[in-house]
Amino acid sequence: MKTMIREHLKIEPKNPLIIEGLPGLGMVGRIATKYLIKQLGAKRFALLYSPHFPYYVVVNKKGNVRLLRGEFYYWNNSEGNDLIFFTGDSQAQTIEGQYEIAEAILDFANRRNVKNLITLGGYRKEANGTPKVIATATDPEFLKDALRANASISPPGNPIVGTAGLLVGMARFQGISALCLLGETRGYLPDPKAAKSILLVLQRMLTVTVDLNDLDKEIAKSDEILEKMRQIEARRETYAKKTRRGEEGKTTYIS
Amino acid sequence: MKTMIREHLKIEPKNPLIIEGLPGLGMVGRIATKYLIKQLGAKRFALLYSPHFPYYVVVNKKGNVRLLRGEFYYWNNSEGNDLIFFTGDSQAQTIEGQYEIAEAILDFANRRNVKNLITLGGYRKEANGTPKVIATATDPEFLKDALRANASISPPGNPIVGTAGLLVGMARFQGISALCLLGETRGYLPDPKAAKSILLVLQRMLTVTVDLNDLDKEIAKSDEILEKMRQIEARRETYAKKTRRGEEGKTTYIS
Amino acid sequence: MKTMIREHLKIEPKNPLIIEGLPGLGMVGRIATKYLIKQLGAKRFALLYSPHFPYYVVVNKKGNVRLLRGEFYYWNNSEGNDLIFFTGDSQAQTIEGQYEIAEAILDFANRRNVKNLITLGGYRKEANGTPKVIATATDPEFLKDALRANASISPPGNPIVGTAGLLVGMARFQGISALCLLGETRGYLPDPKAAKSILLVLQRMLTVTVDLNDLDKEIAKSDEILEKMRQIEARRETYAKKTRRGEEGKTTYIS
Amino acid sequence: MKTMIREHLKIEPKNPLIIEGLPGLGMVGRIATKYLIKQLGAKRFALLYSPHFPYYVVVNKKGNVRLLRGEFYYWNNSEGNDLIFFTGDSQAQTIEGQYEIAEAILDFANRRNVKNLITLGGYRKEANGTPKVIATATDPEFLKDALRANASISPPGNPIVGTAGLLVGMARFQGISALCLLGETRGYLPDPKAAKSILLVLQRMLTVTVDLNDLDKEIAKSDEILEKMRQIEARRETYAKKTRRGEEGKTTYIS
Repeated sequence: MKTMIREHLKIEPKNPLIIEGLPGLGMVGRIATKYLIKQLGAKRFALLYSPHFPYYVVVNKKGNVRLLRGEFYYWNNSEGNDLIFFTGDSQAQTIEGQYEIAEAILDFANRRNVKNLITLGGYRKEANGTPKVIATATDPEFLKDALRANASISPPGNPIVGTAGLLVGMARFQGISALCLLGETRGYLPDPKAAKSILLVLQRMLTVTVDLNDLDKEIAKSDEILEKMRQIEARRETYAKKTRRGEEGKTTYIS
Repeated sequence: MKTMIREHLKIEPKNPLIIEGLPGLGMVGRIATKYLIKQLGAKRFALLYSPHFPYYVVVNKKGNVRLLRGEFYYWNNSEGNDLIFFTGDSQAQTIEGQYEIAEAILDFANRRNVKNLITLGGYRKEANGTPKVIATATDPEFLKDALRANASISPPGNPIVGTAGLLVGMARFQGISALCLLGETRGYLPDPKAAKSILLVLQRMLTVTVDLNDLDKEIAKSDEILEKMRQIEARRETYAKKTRRGEEGKTTYIS
Repeated sequence: MKTMIREHLKIEPKNPLIIEGLPGLGMVGRIATKYLIKQLGAKRFALLYSPHFPYYVVVNKKGNVRLLRGEFYYWNNSEGNDLIFFTGDSQAQTIEGQYEIAEAILDFANRRNVKNLITLGGYRKEANGTPKVIATATDPEFLKDALRANASISPPGNPIVGTAGLLVGMARFQGISALCLLGETRGYLPDPKAAKSILLVLQRMLTVTVDLNDLDKEIAKSDEILEKMRQIEARRETYAKKTRRGEEGKTTYIS
Repeated sequence: MKTMIREHLKIEPKNPLIIEGLPGLGMVGRIATKYLIKQLGAKRFALLYSPHFPYYVVVNKKGNVRLLRGEFYYWNNSEGNDLIFFTGDSQAQTIEGQYEIAEAILDFANRRNVKNLITLGGYRKEANGTPKVIATATDPEFLKDALRANASISPPGNPIVGTAGLLVGMARFQGISALCLLGETRGYLPDPKAAKSILLVLQRMLTVTVDLNDLDKEIAKSDEILEKMRQIEARRETYAKKTRRGEEGKTTYIS
C-alpha cells in the first residue's frame, strides 16, 4: 500500500484555502479544525490512507471497523474563499512517512487549485491566562494578515514539528502560500482554550463566523479537570514535604 | 526480496472464505486457526515470504532449515463455503511491513474470488470464566451473523493491532467483506481456552464441525500450568509481605 | 545507493561452492572464512557495497579510507570444486537490509553457476572442551555429508540469525543447495577454537587441506586472555562475597 | 519527496573543489565551513532537501519558515581552484538516508566537474592544547598534501561516522579524489578552536587566505564558557567529596 487519497465526492471549489489540524501538542490543531468542520457543516469528500500510520484499526459505536486515516472536508463559502479542511486520526510514524504524507496533501491541494494553506497546532508554554497565537509564514504578506488578526510573530529558531510544520515548509514546491498558527498550550491535556484563541484569529482573517458556545462549554469542562488535578497535586506536595522532613530528621540522627 | 506468495498447488475454490490467525496476544488467533487446519485436514497450497519478517531462519526436527513464512491452506467444503486459512510464524516487524503483508494477502485472496474474510486474535481482559468473543466488522450483516453465533459487539475505540486489524481495515479496497473475532485472554501465555471460544462461534457461523477433544486436553494442560504459577506467585507474595514487615519495623526503629 | 556488487576481476569458476562467514557470534564465521582465504591464497575479485551497512568508513594503516563492504574471494581448486568466499566488515543494520544483502549474494552466486553454499557462524553454548559443530541444511544429502564429517545435527527450533541463516533459507529460490555450520561458542569474545572445529569439518567435506598452525597460535593467545579474565572474575567474586557478608552483618544488627 | 537538489543560480566553476562541513562532533566541520563561506563571501547557489532530515521546520528572525536543508555555496577563486561549499542544518536521520544524501551530493558534484572533495569534522580527544588535525584520504597524493600542510595521519581503524565519512568512502564511485580532515575536540560543545586548526591546514593546502580574527573572538568566548564550567564542576566535586566522607562515616558507624 502506498499513501493514497480516495475522493468519494467531486467538489469544484472557488479560490479554496486549506486548513490543516492533526493530533499533536494539546490536540490544539485537531480541536480547532474539527470544531470549524462541525459548526460550518463542512462535508467529507476524500480520505487519505497511508502505511505510515500506526498499524491498527479502530472500532466505532456500531462495532464497525476502519483503518486510521486522514479526512478532507469541503465548505462552500458564499462570501469568500471556499474552505477545505484536513484532519485525521494520527500523524505519520516515521520520518519518511511524515514527508510523504505532507507531500500527498500538498499535491492533492495543488490539483484543486489551492493557493493558500493554514496549518494549526500547539506551542508549548507554561504560562496562564488567555493563550496567545504564534504565527509564522512562507510569505510576509500572509504573516502580516495573521498579525493584524491578533496573532504574535513566532520567536526565531522555534522548530515546528510534524505535519503542521512540513506542510508549510514544503508548500513552496507547489506554489502554495502557507501560514502556521500555533496556540500556546501546556500540551499534556487536550486544550480547547488554545483552540479557541486560534479560531478567533482565523475568524478575523477569513470571512467566516462560527458560534463558539460549544467550545466555551468544553473549556469550562477542561478547566474543572485541571482544577481537580491541581488540588491532587497540591495534596501530593504537602504529603511529600512532610515525608521529606521525616527523612531529613532521620538522616541527621544517623550521621 | 519483496513480499511474495508462492503457490505450489493449484486450487479452484468455490465461494471461498478466508480465515486468518497469526501469532499475537495469547496466541489465540494462531491456535484457533492451526486447530481448524489440523482437524479439517486442510492442505497447504501456498507460502508467503517477506523481508519484513524477523531476519532469522528456523530448524525443524530433521535438521532442515527454512525461512520464516506465512502459510495458506485450503479445505474443500462439500456443504458450504470452501475455506482458505492463513497462518504463519510471525507478524511483520515494521509498520510499513504490516501494511505490505496485509495488502499481499488481500490481493491474493481477491484473485481467488474470496468475498469474505474472518480474522482471529486475542482481546486483553483480566477476568476469569469462559472467555467471551468480541466481534467487529466492515459490514453490519456480517457483524449480525457473528452476534447471532454468540459473539459480543466490540466496545467502541478498541484498537485492533497488527495483521488481524489491518486485513479487516483494508478489505474494502478489494471488495471483501470482513469480520474480526477476538477471544478474551490475559495474553501472557498461549491461551487455548480463548481459542475454543472462537471456534464455537465459528462453528455456529459456518457449516463446519470439528472435534474439540484435543483442544480440551490443551486447555486442561494450560490450566495446570496457570495453577502452578498462581501457587508460586502466592508464595512469593507471602514471603514479600514478611520481608516488608521486617523493613517497616527497621524503619520505625531508626527514625 | 543500492546494494551493489562490483567485480574487478573476471573469474571462470568450475563447479564453484560458496562459503560465507561474516562478523557474528564469537566472530566464528568470519575467523574461519578469513583463515581459509589466507591459507589458500584466494584472490579478491569482487566487492559488495550497501546502504544497509553502518554509516561510517574505516581507515587503514596507510591513512587510506574505505566504505564498509563485503568481499568475494576466489580459489581455483585443481582437485575439486572451485571455492568462492564471502566475508566482510559488517552485517546489514536493518531487517529489510538483511534480506536485501542475502538476496544480492545469492543472485551473484547463481549467475556464476554456484550450486552449493555453506554458511559459517557461532552457536551459543556455555560448555567447555572442544566446541562441536552444529549443522542444518536445505537438503538431507548435504546435511548427511556434514554429519559424516563429524558435525552434529542442529536441535529443532534453533533460530539462525542474520546472513548465515537467511542465505540458507533463501537459497532454494535460486536453486542452490545450502548448508549451515555453527561452531559452539560462548560468543562474547572472538573464538578461534570454534572456528577451528568448523575448519576440521570443512576439510573432511571438501578436497581442501590447510595448515592449522597459525590458528592454533591464535587459540593459545585467546586461551591466555580467557584465563586472565577468569582470574579477575574470581578475585571480584571473592571481594563481593566479603562485602556481602559485611552487609548482611549490618542488616541483622539494625533489625 | 525524494532527496533533491534545487539550483537557483547557474554557476560555471573552473576546476572546482568541494568542501563539506555538516553539524557533527563539536560542530567542527560546520563552524569551519560556515566561517570560510562568510569570510570569502561565497554565494549560495543551490539547496538540498531530503525526507531523511528531521521532520520539523525552523523559523527565522522575520517569522519566515523553511524546511531543514543542505546548502551549496560557490566562490570564484581568481588564483586557483574555484570552491564549492556544502553545509546545512542536519545530517540524515537514518542509515539509508545517510547513504542517499552522500550519493546525491557526489552526483551533483560530479556533474559540475568536481575532481576533489574535502570533508571536515571533529575527532574525539580529551587532550588540551592546540587541537591537531587528523587526515585520511582515498588517494596517497591527496593525503601527502594534507600532511605537508601540517595535518597528522589518522590512526588505523578510526571510524569516520556520518556524511564526512561516507562522502570520502563513496567518492571513488564518481571518480572524485577525497580527503577528510578532522579537528581534535572533546566534542560536547561547539569547538571553534578545532575549526581554526582545520582552517590553518586548509589555507596551507589551497590558495586561499581568510582573516581569522572573528574566529579568535569566538574561541575566546568559548574558552570563557569552558572555564566557568570547570569551576562549577570543581565546586561540585568538592561538595561530593564532603558528602561521601559523611556517608562513609555513617556507614562505618552503622556496621
